[in-house]
Amino acid sequence: MKLIQSPSKLNRLVHQLKRKGRRIGFVPTMGYLHKGHLALVKRALKENDVVIVSIFVNPTQFGPKEDFKRYPRNLKRDQKFLKQVHTDYLFAPTRRSVYPKGFREFVSPGPLAKYLCGPKRPGHFQGVATVVNRLFQMVAPDSAYFGEKDYQQLRVIQEMVRRFRLPIAIKRCPIVRERDGLAMSSRNRYLSTKERIQARALYQSLLKAHKLIKGGERDAGRIKREVRKFLKPYVTKIDYVEISNPSTLVLVKRVKGSVLVTLACFIGTTRLIDNKIIKV
Amino acid sequence: MKLIQSPSKLNRLVHQLKRKGRRIGFVPTMGYLHKGHLALVKRALKENDVVIVSIFVNPTQFGPKEDFKRYPRNLKRDQKFLKQVHTDYLFAPTRRSVYPKGFREFVSPGPLAKYLCGPKRPGHFQGVATVVNRLFQMVAPDSAYFGEKDYQQLRVIQEMVRRFRLPIAIKRCPIVRERDGLAMSSRNRYLSTKERIQARALYQSLLKAHKLIKGGERDAGRIKREVRKFLKPYVTKIDYVEISNPSTLVLVKRVKGSVLVTLACFIGTTRLIDNKIIKV
Repeated sequence: MKLIQSPSKLNRLVHQLKRKGRRIGFVPTMGYLHKGHLALVKRALKENDVVIVSIFVNPTQFGPKEDFKRYPRNLKRDQKFLKQVHTDYLFAPTRRSVYPKGFREFVSPGPLAKYLCGPKRPGHFQGVATVVNRLFQMVAPDSAYFGEKDYQQLRVIQEMVRRFRLPIAIKRCPIVRERDGLAMSSRNRYLSTKERIQARALYQSLLKAHKLIKGGERDAGRIKREVRKFLKPYVTKIDYVEISNPSTLVLVKRVKGSVLVTLACFIGTTRLIDNKIIKV
Repeated sequence: MKLIQSPSKLNRLVHQLKRKGRRIGFVPTMGYLHKGHLALVKRALKENDVVIVSIFVNPTQFGPKEDFKRYPRNLKRDQKFLKQVHTDYLFAPTRRSVYPKGFREFVSPGPLAKYLCGPKRPGHFQGVATVVNRLFQMVAPDSAYFGEKDYQQLRVIQEMVRRFRLPIAIKRCPIVRERDGLAMSSRNRYLSTKERIQARALYQSLLKAHKLIKGGERDAGRIKREVRKFLKPYVTKIDYVEISNPSTLVLVKRVKGSVLVTLACFIGTTRLIDNKIIKV
């Protein structure tokens, strides 16, 4: 695996690959990789001639009180993992090459940012759309891989691609979970041993919702109340529990067809999210 | 030649071409094609597997008092010309597909817009950078072709590509001129027979500058005065005559190495531009 840090070198590489007609698969990440990321890379490797993974902890998607500074970073560790799965290229740009001096071309996250994490993290999805657009500009991939763990992010990116008519195929990949059901996340490393055990409740509460719906419950309010009741003893604060249309993210009152159950909770000072699409 | 008006169809085409590893050459135009455009298309055809020409009269690059409404449009005529040179695809998008509802992602034209036409046409180069970025997003070309007639536009686009690290090769193509030296331009059709004859003075004044420099004149101020003096009897108004560094566009006081002599004049109500790079 080759590490590329200079945007000019990436630019030359991409020119070369395009000239040779290679299909480029792209996996944008913020690093501190886990099995969820590696699942994206493995799929990208299957479906493309060449895979470029990026690691960039994007400052513009963090709020002023969020964890940008303490977000875990370990390039050596990430390189080792990426080598193991036979990644072709790791692109680790500097802040300045993603956001050149005087940068102001922020990308609107669109109406999907009104829901769920949007109001809780002002500016977050604008930051996400902007950085993914910048990386797409630089890497010019044929396909890009995103996990369903950050479901709203995935939808915001799909909408950006549709709105701008980018010829990039967005590939949705299922959530990878720990044995006890906790969704893989770089932020899990913030958890103490005790918090790590409490964190199981997130997925368990989604299974609770699943069970209720399969048992015939259709009232979204009642399901959300049950999920909250389930979570309460385990979490420090519930940021939200919502049931939405999986496409528009608009909140639903009654469960029909497919619904997206999403939640965000603080365990200690760590904010975790999870979700599950449940079909009636 | 295939005409594509729907952005979804273009999107499918580009996906297909990329999947097949085809090199895409792109020629963005505002239509009402002339031999200058066709020279771009011919070169693109030589250097690529497939050529896409776009025709889009871009509203955001016209000032409120400029000629957006009366800018010449004739799709049938343009299609005929493009067929004759064996263009593969003509993309003629609607305004809405280039600027989707709520569009706000305007691209900064950078410091090059401070000079020459920039102050005379506020917003023009932002409009140019924005539309070319949008078309680049949609077409994802390997190479894009621009004429040196719009020299400052070409430099603004080169800088945008460098700043965003787009893996797109920008190909500069020399000005194509009428027999009497007038640079080809869609706006030449605005000229009356009399004005058309007067318009010869633009190129002739550049030849005058050339002659002065070759004759040893190094004082930019004196050269500009001579050019203005030459132009005056033929034009309604001189917008500017400048001598600049061809890379930075910064005005020079003394002629050294290569200089860019540029001018903009009104003949009647028609604003024409021309330029010449002159090496000492």
